[in-house]
Amino acid sequence: MRGSPVHRQAQKDYRWEGVDRLAYKEEGSAPFKDISRQVLIADENLACELRYFEMAAGGYSTLERHEHVHGVMILRGRGHCLVGNEVRAVAERDLVTIPPWTWHQFRAAAGEPLGFLCMVNAKRDKPQLPSEDELAAIYQNPRVAAFLDGRMAELDGA
Amino acid sequence: MRGSPVHRQAQKDYRWEGVDRLAYKEEGSAPFKDISRQVLIADENLACELRYFEMAAGGYSTLERHEHVHGVMILRGRGHCLVGNEVRAVAERDLVTIPPWTWHQFRAAAGEPLGFLCMVNAKRDKPQLPSEDELAAIYQNPRVAAFLDGRMAELDGA
Repeated sequence: MRGSPVHRQAQKDYRWEGVDRLAYKEEGSAPFKDISRQVLIADENLACELRYFEMAAGGYSTLERHEHVHGVMILRGRGHCLVGNEVRAVAERDLVTIPPWTWHQFRAAAGEPLGFLCMVNAKRDKPQLPSEDELAAIYQNPRVAAFLDGRMAELDGA
Repeated sequence: MRGSPVHRQAQKDYRWEGVDRLAYKEEGSAPFKDISRQVLIADENLACELRYFEMAAGGYSTLERHEHVHGVMILRGRGHCLVGNEVRAVAERDLVTIPPWTWHQFRAAAGEPLGFLCMVNAKRDKPQLPSEDELAAIYQNPRVAAFLDGRMAELDGA
């Protein structure tokens, strides 16, 4: 018994009845740290899925890009996100849209987890990782470099 | 200037930068009470939209059904929902899926607002209201009747 398919109660600590807490990605497939994935809503009659990702304090998602778009709402905690060349502080209920083919990454604050909802097309392409040359180009921007290296104090909450 | 399209900051009281607070439906088109609508994420590259609906204390959405499916997460407050013949108490972060052609309604608790995220296909059919005969059939279930009449004390939090 995995709970009613039409009603899944939120349990404490951002877990849901009948929803498995999954590995973010296959270990070793891409760089990431301390992040988990829960598929909250996936239904054959819905063209999108709603997932919940959570990073522990200091954790981060993979720096990647793809054709498909992410619609994100921060649900828990605080951190920063990179979208293209923009680094922004994010907090509960902030909305972030990741446009097609845009490098992006989420990072939890040093002392707090970061959890977010992510709406995504059920049919979608696989993410790409940056090549060495692409990564070097991304690092040209000092603010982006500070974000990618986890030097969050340099980002001064902007 | 409506804020960055990729980053919309949550303001206090469940409003978002650059997102209009809209009427729930056209006045007089269907029964509802004290409910507003905000379209949080709608993008030509996403097959779904993410909306936020909020009812003031004692408010309710329209009793209706349609072919399209709703994927709901409660974001604020407490209340009850009707899905088919089931009446359930809902609270923050609970998930509710409304299957196709299923009568449904949300009601805020007497003393608290109820706000929820609703994921829905961008292309979808229009809702149907119950006929008099259908409404009489729905009222056959005493628990459903108590819900529809707003006699929430009779639902004993189940």
